[in-house]
Amino acid sequence: MKNICLLGSTGSIGKNTLDVIRQHHEKFNALTLTTNKNISLLSEQISEFNPKHVVIYDKHAHDIFCQTVNHAGFKVWQGNEGLLRSWDDDEPDIVVNAFVGFAGLEPTIEAIKRKITVALANKETLVVAGSYIMDLIGKYGVDLVPIDSEHSAIWQCLAGESGNNIKRLFLTASGGPFRRTPASKLAEVTPEQALKHPNWDMGSKITIDSATLMNKGLEVIEAFWLYKVPLKSIEVVIHPQSIIHSMVEFEDKSIKAQLGVPDMRIPIQYAISYPDRYPLNIPEMDFLAANTLTFEQPDMEKFPCLGLAYEVLRRGESYPAVLNAANEVAVAAFLEKKLKFTDISHVIEDQLHQHSSVDEETFESYLEIDLQTRRITSEYIGRINKKK
Amino acid sequence: MKNICLLGSTGSIGKNTLDVIRQHHEKFNALTLTTNKNISLLSEQISEFNPKHVVIYDKHAHDIFCQTVNHAGFKVWQGNEGLLRSWDDDEPDIVVNAFVGFAGLEPTIEAIKRKITVALANKETLVVAGSYIMDLIGKYGVDLVPIDSEHSAIWQCLAGESGNNIKRLFLTASGGPFRRTPASKLAEVTPEQALKHPNWDMGSKITIDSATLMNKGLEVIEAFWLYKVPLKSIEVVIHPQSIIHSMVEFEDKSIKAQLGVPDMRIPIQYAISYPDRYPLNIPEMDFLAANTLTFEQPDMEKFPCLGLAYEVLRRGESYPAVLNAANEVAVAAFLEKKLKFTDISHVIEDQLHQHSSVDEETFESYLEIDLQTRRITSEYIGRINKKK
Repeated sequence: MKNICLLGSTGSIGKNTLDVIRQHHEKFNALTLTTNKNISLLSEQISEFNPKHVVIYDKHAHDIFCQTVNHAGFKVWQGNEGLLRSWDDDEPDIVVNAFVGFAGLEPTIEAIKRKITVALANKETLVVAGSYIMDLIGKYGVDLVPIDSEHSAIWQCLAGESGNNIKRLFLTASGGPFRRTPASKLAEVTPEQALKHPNWDMGSKITIDSATLMNKGLEVIEAFWLYKVPLKSIEVVIHPQSIIHSMVEFEDKSIKAQLGVPDMRIPIQYAISYPDRYPLNIPEMDFLAANTLTFEQPDMEKFPCLGLAYEVLRRGESYPAVLNAANEVAVAAFLEKKLKFTDISHVIEDQLHQHSSVDEETFESYLEIDLQTRRITSEYIGRINKKK
Repeated sequence: MKNICLLGSTGSIGKNTLDVIRQHHEKFNALTLTTNKNISLLSEQISEFNPKHVVIYDKHAHDIFCQTVNHAGFKVWQGNEGLLRSWDDDEPDIVVNAFVGFAGLEPTIEAIKRKITVALANKETLVVAGSYIMDLIGKYGVDLVPIDSEHSAIWQCLAGESGNNIKRLFLTASGGPFRRTPASKLAEVTPEQALKHPNWDMGSKITIDSATLMNKGLEVIEAFWLYKVPLKSIEVVIHPQSIIHSMVEFEDKSIKAQLGVPDMRIPIQYAISYPDRYPLNIPEMDFLAANTLTFEQPDMEKFPCLGLAYEVLRRGESYPAVLNAANEVAVAAFLEKKLKFTDISHVIEDQLHQHSSVDEETFESYLEIDLQTRRITSEYIGRINKKK
């Protein structure tokens, strides 16, 4: 039985993780459930999964929950400090980090320091602090396993290949809802249009990132840190069917790919069942139905966010953290209709241009860059809106 | 340094194997070269690769070679007995069995009994005697590794998955040159047309097998023995581009595929370098050039040979050996224009219908069934031709 601490149980990855646990309740136990503030869904999950610990990050939601819900069978904690105290009481075997945004960084660092395996769905951990995190991983000798479908695909392809050099990584990308939209029309697309992802059902921030290709850019950064390959060996291939989840080419030019229906339960389960695989009750792949797989080059001019991700990796140091924070603020502004779709990349570029790099790698320095970039980006977007 | 005994050095797989050795002469040594009777090419190979042993199977060719070629630097042997005596002198680390036809069976058996790793390109070994060979493999604890691109693809996908159950195997097939030919026109196709394989450059017997889909049928039989999966879990998928070489689906519905340019040097090298991979100087895969991969169901009515392969596996015992021998004779007759393309399957069906199964599993019993089936099939084809 593996005890799971699920960070972000009420989000999209969290719900899928709970379905995997539901399908294998003899193998996995939901030891700890956490949410930011969705206490209504959390209550339902508590009834079904019977966790020993519950962590609510939002102070107000925590207080309401404590006042209104009978919590005789489990302990309730608040915020990141509460999470760590819950680990003092009962240390999980695996932390599934499905937090969205910068909030996912600190729990990853703490888990590594306690030598707890981290199954990582949180993109920001490696995007913001890849160098620092990988150093920690090496220092503490901990497993950091990916949940993202692309990185999981690569990881699955690398099984049994230890010692064999990677020649190229092919990260596949659906291309998002605007793959066929003329560049001249992109300035007018609405959040509603951008939220219609062709293949995957995900949270709204990630769905917008998918429409700008920033999502793929962030994955390039993660792959760079996870698999330690030169940046020029990481290629993005547009594959609109999302059947091939990514590929690895070895030195002998043999390529391995991981494929399947686009269902996050496959990579989630593999992350917590590895190296074993268990049956999974999800739809089966039908090659005769999905009978054509296509590949295209990404349009870097139409989707400049992808190029920005390569650029921040070349610049290194704190640039990726700035990219991440500026993007998060810009995407939120787009969703609130305060920014045009095409201005997302402009806002990020502007922030990168302004930034003076910092290479002091501590959680505090990342936090400071994050907060500062968010503040400056918000102000900048505010000024743009005033001008209108 | 791995010492290689190359059975069939003058054939298509043999020449590709020598190119792999040429590219890695610091890792592989061509200890023994063998041919049936192509002594002219053999002489060139000897000059370049400097083997310690040379085996010529055809008695006449052997004698001519001995009389005309200076063989001061190496030993010359004749036939299978000669091969075994060369092994007494210098046992190889790996036998690459690239013989075509029934002749490949005996050396496989002898190598297993001497606990020499066998890299198998010879289809007949497992098609004719799969049950017997796999028992021997278990008994002697030897590695039998595949060279066929499809079985190598599966084997590569299974790396790092020990203990995980296979749900389905997808053997991909190009569909051959007659994939789009109407069934009504198949009776008139010529050997010249059948020899034009769309993707792979192979020997003529295998190329005809590819046109009838018997090649894929034989691979189904091999996969059944190599990977010990139920017959109903082996699916053939027509994939005309020959980029995905085969796929494995696991219990969690995750699918792994091995892809690449259609070049036999990849699976050949992996068979002898496993578990390591070395650089290989061959063309690189370009997903943007090969930008569409398609999948279709095989037409079992138009290509009945594929169904016959499933049928002999269901019947078991000596039926696969009959299928193999009847097919070899029928294909030879087709190449000599003594049989219509569509009669290849009829001839095989007729032989299966006549056969009374034998389950005594010895090399001698397989040999007897093979010889008897060849004789009866030849007579049958002779009678058909007389009637014309």
